[in-house]
Parts: sequence; structure tokens; C-alpha cells
Amino acid sequence: MISQNIKSKLAGGSAIRKMFEEGNRLKALYGAENVFDFSIGNPDLEPPREVSEALRELADNPTPGMHGYMSNSGYESTRAAIAAKRSAESGLEINAGAVCMTVGAASGLNDILHSLLDTDDEVIVLAPFFMEYSNYIANHNGKTIIVDTGDDFMPDIDAISKAITPKTKAIIINSPNNPSGVIYGEEVLSSLNTMLKNQDHVIHVISDEPYIDLVYDGLTVPAALKYIDNLIICFSWSKSLSLPGERIGYTLVSPKNEDYEDLTAAIVLSNRILGSVNAPAIWQKVVERSLNAKVDVANYEYRRNLLYDNIIDAGFDAIKPSGALYIFMKTPEGLTDAEFSAICAKQNLLLVPGASFSRPGFCRLAFCVSEQTIRGSRRAFYAVAEELGLTARKEQ
Amino acid sequence: MISQNIKSKLAGGSAIRKMFEEGNRLKALYGAENVFDFSIGNPDLEPPREVSEALRELADNPTPGMHGYMSNSGYESTRAAIAAKRSAESGLEINAGAVCMTVGAASGLNDILHSLLDTDDEVIVLAPFFMEYSNYIANHNGKTIIVDTGDDFMPDIDAISKAITPKTKAIIINSPNNPSGVIYGEEVLSSLNTMLKNQDHVIHVISDEPYIDLVYDGLTVPAALKYIDNLIICFSWSKSLSLPGERIGYTLVSPKNEDYEDLTAAIVLSNRILGSVNAPAIWQKVVERSLNAKVDVANYEYRRNLLYDNIIDAGFDAIKPSGALYIFMKTPEGLTDAEFSAICAKQNLLLVPGASFSRPGFCRLAFCVSEQTIRGSRRAFYAVAEELGLTARKEQ
Repeated sequence: MISQNIKSKLAGGSAIRKMFEEGNRLKALYGAENVFDFSIGNPDLEPPREVSEALRELADNPTPGMHGYMSNSGYESTRAAIAAKRSAESGLEINAGAVCMTVGAASGLNDILHSLLDTDDEVIVLAPFFMEYSNYIANHNGKTIIVDTGDDFMPDIDAISKAITPKTKAIIINSPNNPSGVIYGEEVLSSLNTMLKNQDHVIHVISDEPYIDLVYDGLTVPAALKYIDNLIICFSWSKSLSLPGERIGYTLVSPKNEDYEDLTAAIVLSNRILGSVNAPAIWQKVVERSLNAKVDVANYEYRRNLLYDNIIDAGFDAIKPSGALYIFMKTPEGLTDAEFSAICAKQNLLLVPGASFSRPGFCRLAFCVSEQTIRGSRRAFYAVAEELGLTARKEQ
Repeated sequence: MISQNIKSKLAGGSAIRKMFEEGNRLKALYGAENVFDFSIGNPDLEPPREVSEALRELADNPTPGMHGYMSNSGYESTRAAIAAKRSAESGLEINAGAVCMTVGAASGLNDILHSLLDTDDEVIVLAPFFMEYSNYIANHNGKTIIVDTGDDFMPDIDAISKAITPKTKAIIINSPNNPSGVIYGEEVLSSLNTMLKNQDHVIHVISDEPYIDLVYDGLTVPAALKYIDNLIICFSWSKSLSLPGERIGYTLVSPKNEDYEDLTAAIVLSNRILGSVNAPAIWQKVVERSLNAKVDVANYEYRRNLLYDNIIDAGFDAIKPSGALYIFMKTPEGLTDAEFSAICAKQNLLLVPGASFSRPGFCRLAFCVSEQTIRGSRRAFYAVAEELGLTARKEQ
């Protein structure tokens, strides 16, 4: 008597979640130190000092109404501070009305999709992609149209152009990318914008930016606001401030967006009627006071390097990720992802097959796990490589 | 280019929100002390001491991972504590698996409806009712079937029975009720259960219980768990602990529910894919430590009495509310609600016409406003009554 819709989703389950449970099973059998579980991307650094200080200050000095309702879009002061920061980054004049505080990026994406989609409207996503996008699009009766990226995981503008139909309402981009870790450059953003502006109707670009502060090698992420006109940003502090359990993020509509007035109003209404009502009050105040803080990114970079070296040294291939928390390693020739991950599992090495991101031929490894796990896994990578007859590039 | 769906909702707007804006306009014109705005039910008491102490303790003693992801259903310890409390209230054996922590009751209701509804499935609501129910049902492609209650605002079991079709998936009940303030007694809950169990298929009862702790005159609210088998509860601490801006609540499936296994799994999955992911971590910990606390209910009762006396003394009619935060006053004979509220507005007296709750012939007044506003409004009620030629029951 539950819905057919949810029943089929329950049957499907989540590959990542299953892997997580398999990890727990193996840990019980072999001891946690002998299981190398790279399946779940749970940001494991503590929030920066600014966050704990802001939280303590708010808790120690309660003010009347601080836990009460505010506008469905959130506190004006928080939104104005975000708008100012994004204005400075982009050179655009963005005001508080462009911003809606949301229950993390996931709720923000749902607000945006609810604002854009009628039944059977299409949203383009670029494989490999975070699979929840398909669920979010389906929530609002839309269709997910998957377009593959190139070998470098960069958007293929021609392929995207060919996938556009009169029903195409939006395209979701995600840079730094989960799972590939690539950062989209200025040129590809500009080309995407030019191609989209040449279409017969408005196609919005939804830029999902949870990893925008997690970049390595001294790189920076080009501001999508500078290059794309019909832009809607979706952000979360889950990774930047390591607050995934607290559910705080925002949406921002570019002032250059042709549907600016309608969209800003529709997103706030969606935030109300989809059930968030508003983002958690205290976390709006905390992030307002921590707007320039971020977690210890160098620590993630250090672990990325360790894990990447294991993979490459043992004889496997992967593009070194410039951002985010994952390495999307190539599955060795002649094996399916499932076969490869089964071989890895024999060495207690857990990774997520690329099918979970609509990109077979790869497996995802999250490097937000302990240094000990990464160091310990080196022998497992070498053991798998040996079984497959790969040639190591360095000594174990 | 935004969706037709959201466009029509934007055009409709919210009557309550409009009244709120009219209130602000009048306050700017006449001074806040001369405007008697009863339109918005924003809980205005501060949270009890237990809440601020728990929050301070958590903020002062950060522990690793306290802001990280947990299971999509929430912390096991929080859910177990809620299950124990509900077990004690109902005599049923409820375990933590029955409970899913949610981003307030609004997200909880959406999780439940997403779990139950396929396209065009029907959900019965009892007028007068909180109008967001219609939006929530529409979010999941369901149809709202409105059934009127009796003159006493109690469920009319025959009328409900007649409204049932093969498509009926659920009925939403809300006691203490917004807007009428009535509490459903044991008998009506039992009769509802018997009637529903006699149907050809399972019909779930969704009990929306945000006001369950706000009851007056020494009354208690019968536990729906005791009387209804196919029950799903939806709760929020927005009113009980005055935390509406923080978005914390839960769903609970009765162990007697025929779809218990499927439903508990479906709700957790819905909580993930609809975008909440999980309820805010810190608020789960706070409510766990404040489970037996509540706001100063006597203060609300005092203001209920003041406002009720104004209404009755001036010559109007209303059922005295036993719970919640509203008086649903009768519109005087011969006037539409819109006409009556326009006459009231001339005295700077703002209330919400019954149409907003699908029950014309009434207007809703929220008594969670300052004592000063309620006392000041007495002269406005008398002025309106005089204009309408009503006979006062007491001196002004």
C-alpha cells in the first residue's frame, strides 16, 4: 500500500549505502584497521574555529526570537552578506533578494527544480554525476537526460547541444566535480553559455557548488557567475565548513538571469511548500559569522596525494582530482567495474563502481578517510595489481 | 520559463502572508500599538530553560563529528528516547526504528505523502484545515479531498466514509486543530478507526500533532496511537519548545500499522531524496535532552482567555479553543468573511477569512500576540460590533 514510485526506489537501494554496509560487515570480521573503505564521502574534518566560536557565542547569549520563524528566504543579514561575497567574486551587483537560505544544497536543488519543471520537462546532467540528481529531477516529474563528458570529464558542448529539445529546461553542472574531481575552466563555461544563448528558448544552468572551497594545487575555481548568464547557484556548507549534519546552504539567482524575478519568488515559495519552510535559524547566523572560514583544505590535499600515489604507483590509472573529495580511478582493461570491485573486495578494498555515476569503466574512491586507512590500503592496491598482472610504477 | 505549476501557485499567494503584509502597512501608518494583527500564528514564547541549557552545553563541549552526517533517519539515541516516551503514553511497544527525525513537521508530512502517493491518489482532509496540506499533497501528485466537519468541528465519520474511493490512500487529522482549537476525543478516534478498518483496502491515518502539548483547562489529548491502528504520526517542536525557525520534528509509524516495514523504510528514503537528507544534528541532540520540557503553556492560556472574552463580550460567537493557538470566530450573520474582515480592518483589526481554511462563515485569530495587543483590541471588537448592530454581552 505504499506508492509504486517509492517501492521501486526502495528496491533499487543505494549502491554507495550497500557498500557502506558491506564495509561494516567486513570490519566486524577482519577488524577496522584491515578494511580499506573508500565508499562514502563523509567530510571528516572538524569545522574551523570560527564555527565553534560563533555557535558558542550564540548559545551563550540568547536573544528573544532567535529560534523563531523568519522570512521563508532566511535572514536578510545573512543573505546580504552572501550577496556581498558573491558580488566581490564576480564583479556583478548581487543583492540579498537573489539569495534563499536552504536546508543544504539538496533542498536547494529541489527548490530550483520545483520552480522550473512541469511534467516531462527535461534536465541535462553530465556523466559522471552525483546520482541523487536523478531522484531530485523525478521528484518534480522531470526527466533526466544524461550526456557523457569527454575523456577529461569536461563538458562536451556539441554533445550537450545535440541533447537539447523544446522540453529542455535546465542543465546541472558540478565543478569541482563529484566523482571526477575536475574543475571546469573559463573557456568551457563561456562556450556552454554561448551555445545555450543560441537556443530558441531559455535554458537555465544550475551550478551545484558544494565543493567550491575544496580545491588543491593552488588552483581556483572560475566563478560561474562571470561566464554564465541564465545561472542559478546552489551551495552548501557541508564540505566548506564540515557541517553536513546541520543542513545549511543557499540558492542564488544571477542578476543576469532572464527569469530573475519569477525565479527568485518561485524558489522561496518552493522552499516553503516543499517542507523546509526555512533553513535552520541558528546555522544561518553561524555561517554569516564564518563566511570567510573554511576547513583545513591542506589536510584533504595531503590525503588526496597519498591515495593518488597508491593508485598510480601500484600500476592503475586515474586523473588527479583538482578538487572535491574523490578519485575516479580507471577500471583496468578487460574487466567490468563489478568484476574489478569484487577483486578489490577480496583485499578488503571497497570502492563504488562507476555505474553509480552513470560512467562505467571507472570506480570512485573517497579520500576523506583516515591517513591510517589510506596508508594501510597501499598493500591492498599492490595485491590487486599483482592479481591482475599490472606492472607497478614504484616499489610498494 | 518557470513552471506553470509554480506560476499558478505564485499567483495565488498566501492569504495569511498578505494579511501579514497589510498589518505591516497599517503599523507604519497608525503605529504598532494601534494595529491589532491576529493574522499570523508565530509562536512568540521563548523556549524553556532546558533547551537553552542543552544548546549551551553542546556548544561549549564540542565532540568530534557532532555536526557530521548520521543515518538519514537521525540519531539512534534520539529516536529511542522518543520511542520510549510514545510507548509510555500509549502502552504500545514502539522501538527506535519507528521514528524518523525530520526537518519540522512540514518535511515529515512530505516524507509521508511521498511514501504513500502515486499520481491521482486521494488524501482526505477535514475542513477547516491548515491549507499547506493541499500543497504538500500536490507535491506528490495526489488529490486533496475536502470533507467538512460538523458544527463542533469534529470529524463526521459518515461524511468521511462517503468520500472514500479505491484511490483513497490516507486521511490527515490534526488535533488540537488549527484553526478551530478543538481536541478529538477517544470516541471519535475509535469510530474513525472502526470505519476505516471496514474498508476494502488500507487507509492510513496521518496524525499531524504540532499542537499536542498546547492544551488548556487541564485537558489532555487522547493518544491517537491507542485508538488508531494504521497510524502515522507527524510531530514538530515548533510550538512545544518554540523552535519554529530551527526545523526539528519527527515521523512515527505505529507498530500496529499494516504497512509498518515498508512505511518505515519508505519514509527514511523519502527524507533523503526529497532533500532534507537528515534533521539538523544539533537540534536532534537538544530535543533529546528536552523531551519532557515545554513552553509556558499557562501564558498562552491566559492570552486565549483574554482574546476569547473580547470576542464573546462584544457580542460575537466562537467555540472556546481547547488547544493550539487560534480562535476560529463565527462571522456575523448576513456577511461574507471578506466583508466582515474588511469592516474589521477599518478598526485596524486583522484576521484571516475562513476561506483560507476551506471553511467559510468563520475567521481565524491567532492569540500568540502580545497581551497589550489583545487588551488594546477590545475597543476595536466593540467598535465593529457596534457598526454591525450587535448587542454586547458585557461592558467594554
